[in-house]
Amino acid sequence: MEAYRSLEQRFTQIAAFENALGILSWDQETMMPDGGGETRAEALATLSVTQHGLLVDPVVADWLDAAEAETVGLDDWQRANLREMRRRWVHGAAVPPELVDAATRAESQGVIAWRAARRDDDFAGLKPFLQRILDLRREIGQAKAARLDLSPYDALLDEFEPGARSAAIDALFDDLAAFLPDFTEAVLARQAAGPPVQAPDGPFPVEAQRTLGESLMRTVGFDFNRGRLDVSHHPFCGGADDDVRITTRYDESDFTKALMGVLHETGHALYEQGRPQAYLRQPVGAARGMAVHESQSLLVEMQACRSREFLEFAAPVIREAFGRDEPALSVEALYRLYTRVQRGLIRVDADEVTYPAHVIVRYKLEKLLLDGGLELDELPAAWNGLMAELVGATPPNDALGCLQDIHWPGGAWAYFPTYTLGAVAAAQLFDAACRQDGDVRPGLRRGDFAPLVGWLRRNVHAYGSLLSTEELLSRATGRPLDAAAFKAHLRTRYLPD
Amino acid sequence: MEAYRSLEQRFTQIAAFENALGILSWDQETMMPDGGGETRAEALATLSVTQHGLLVDPVVADWLDAAEAETVGLDDWQRANLREMRRRWVHGAAVPPELVDAATRAESQGVIAWRAARRDDDFAGLKPFLQRILDLRREIGQAKAARLDLSPYDALLDEFEPGARSAAIDALFDDLAAFLPDFTEAVLARQAAGPPVQAPDGPFPVEAQRTLGESLMRTVGFDFNRGRLDVSHHPFCGGADDDVRITTRYDESDFTKALMGVLHETGHALYEQGRPQAYLRQPVGAARGMAVHESQSLLVEMQACRSREFLEFAAPVIREAFGRDEPALSVEALYRLYTRVQRGLIRVDADEVTYPAHVIVRYKLEKLLLDGGLELDELPAAWNGLMAELVGATPPNDALGCLQDIHWPGGAWAYFPTYTLGAVAAAQLFDAACRQDGDVRPGLRRGDFAPLVGWLRRNVHAYGSLLSTEELLSRATGRPLDAAAFKAHLRTRYLPD
Repeated sequence: MEAYRSLEQRFTQIAAFENALGILSWDQETMMPDGGGETRAEALATLSVTQHGLLVDPVVADWLDAAEAETVGLDDWQRANLREMRRRWVHGAAVPPELVDAATRAESQGVIAWRAARRDDDFAGLKPFLQRILDLRREIGQAKAARLDLSPYDALLDEFEPGARSAAIDALFDDLAAFLPDFTEAVLARQAAGPPVQAPDGPFPVEAQRTLGESLMRTVGFDFNRGRLDVSHHPFCGGADDDVRITTRYDESDFTKALMGVLHETGHALYEQGRPQAYLRQPVGAARGMAVHESQSLLVEMQACRSREFLEFAAPVIREAFGRDEPALSVEALYRLYTRVQRGLIRVDADEVTYPAHVIVRYKLEKLLLDGGLELDELPAAWNGLMAELVGATPPNDALGCLQDIHWPGGAWAYFPTYTLGAVAAAQLFDAACRQDGDVRPGLRRGDFAPLVGWLRRNVHAYGSLLSTEELLSRATGRPLDAAAFKAHLRTRYLPD
Repeated sequence: MEAYRSLEQRFTQIAAFENALGILSWDQETMMPDGGGETRAEALATLSVTQHGLLVDPVVADWLDAAEAETVGLDDWQRANLREMRRRWVHGAAVPPELVDAATRAESQGVIAWRAARRDDDFAGLKPFLQRILDLRREIGQAKAARLDLSPYDALLDEFEPGARSAAIDALFDDLAAFLPDFTEAVLARQAAGPPVQAPDGPFPVEAQRTLGESLMRTVGFDFNRGRLDVSHHPFCGGADDDVRITTRYDESDFTKALMGVLHETGHALYEQGRPQAYLRQPVGAARGMAVHESQSLLVEMQACRSREFLEFAAPVIREAFGRDEPALSVEALYRLYTRVQRGLIRVDADEVTYPAHVIVRYKLEKLLLDGGLELDELPAAWNGLMAELVGATPPNDALGCLQDIHWPGGAWAYFPTYTLGAVAAAQLFDAACRQDGDVRPGLRRGDFAPLVGWLRRNVHAYGSLLSTEELLSRATGRPLDAAAFKAHLRTRYLPD
């Protein structure tokens, strides 16, 4: 037990660094004045390197060997914790500290450069930063690939979603790519023949939007004693243990995007707030992976909050929040708006029918960029070409094209596929929840998320990283991940009889 | 040079931790939800211990010895940097890491407990936390005393204000204690005979107060590209290099306290924003000490912004900010308000005439508490007794008495005297600035702080820690610190002919 206890202590220390980095990164996106960027990059890099050093310290390898050789007396959680510790160590030890340091610095600067580049539609301005970030990420991918016996892409992907492999993703994405084009055409034709979408007319004051968002976050189950809602350029869920912080951005002419964005991030936050308290600072207490994480946000947003049931509850709350009552704020109008399908340019604004195509564009491009099959110079044209082919929309400029996402400048390569893995898992989990508890859907109609969130707490959140993603899904839904429930959900919602 | 270069690198790393801790501490006071307290305490403690480890790492002692043995090739700044490195090392190496860890944790919890205790007037609720903090601080004081050959109190004081000693403070405070009672009586009599103070009637919306505060911060010279203004229970100046964050608390019924509080913290912030950029992350680039720091805040607040000259500029700005024009917002009324002398209960609300007595109360008590000459049980009564004797006002409860300050629960023992050292230094520096540049006072009248801030940049800020406090004051004003300018200032302002 001694080696295991030493590991627990070490990972508690590592968690303290993660928590510090979580708040510092949140602050960088929400609060930091521009002039603080260099200092922040330095602080983040120094803390990351130190944290990395705590993980790859040779004594950790010794403790791991010793603990793995003597697991008598460890319970299931502790054994799983040990497995997750080893997993982290393998990922960490594969990358030299200088490389971690260089990547963290480059990505801090990259995020700042990205903000300016997106604002100014200036891909050339971002390119040198992005090139450096890509070069470093390639190096990291290669270093991990050698250690994990995977392709560089899969080695990077494995860190975000343990066990995910591009071969399986290719198969799932091919399935979707075969299903979606005809389906999308049929939905577009049906929606074109139906009543038009009425966008509510602004202005919708930011303060009223914020109050509405917080009110519906409470409805869903967000604990404000252990979290916050703020504003950033790119919405995210971050922060620290028991201090989960989500962000959004407001547009006074249109409240509907920020509101659904807030509910999306609330899904992420519920997962974080529902992790097992006894293992909060241990690897086994962490969220399982980013695909499972995204399944929680999309379950709340797409499955629950864009349902007609929830909008029956939410519409009067929305009208009350803005002190207005008009046809565009009726249940039917909001439902039409929130289920409108469009061939759009912006991923974060995309509906759930076209979203997978946005992801597939990025997935194909980042695989090529990492493999050297595409150079950054070629990225804008390649992006626009794939968008035209897969989404059916061509960006008029890079700000609406390959500059729209923070992920690549921020160092999140091989992350995009987890969005669609999450969408597919969300449908499968929500379907199972509704089958197992007949009050899940009716609850939404009365603003009562207790049945749904209770089911998620028991079947997803409380497990932390105890189970693999496949085990988690199999236990909760009776089978591993497949696209059946996702396709059925789309058919039921978008092409009902 | 090699050892010196190694030290520079190490102190750059240490600065990264300081910058991270600065933002995390700011966040704790301004943004953190209550539930995040335990996680934050853990993160702050872990980072502090790691930072401490970087300082007391045996290799640092070797580098210091080697660099001190071979200073050829080092310029004045580098030599001073080496001296400051040694100073930090001596303070750091005197305290075992477990003690740093325990103190940081206890103080994080102490600050949270203090908030509740002050709100609920519950000294008993704070006492166990404060006892632990005091015990740890005593231990730290004893450990430093042994290393520095000073009394425990002076050893703690030396960290806040290098070179300051309680013997000199006793002499200065005795001088003030002899001067102030009769002077205060005379001022009170004169003010009682003059026109009454008119407090402007609220409400003054928080948003308008914030906008006004930011506007006058800009007037004084605060750089918002490298800083922020926010809200916290206890106003402070914190943050990081090139990211200087000040806080205030608003009262909608009275804008005048928050406004002057903001200008006070702006004085601190100007010092931080004016530190030498080439040595920003090195010990020699740090602010000289807390007495000099307080001299900068009090120079801006008390010397400059409570002057009739500045209020001639500010009064119309204030009327404009609130969209109001009334006798209480005239120059004369604001000047009477901002120079009103009262025997009050709250230090942070005290005028500059009675403020030293508030400090002397705390100075006497904390010396006794640290020496064991007073137990915490006796603190409320001792506090109230000294307040009655020295300030002439008796607190009706502990919330308005010994629970009012964050310092002791936050671990800042032997800090209070720096406030009055700062007030005395502020008067001496402002007097010198006015003598050396005839446009300093006239500048205030037109809202032009360039002459004053230019003088401070050249004579104080740009030096960082190159000079000792005594050298700094002697160069800038022609003599070491004494109370002459402070007394002259009080006489001129409060008992003019």
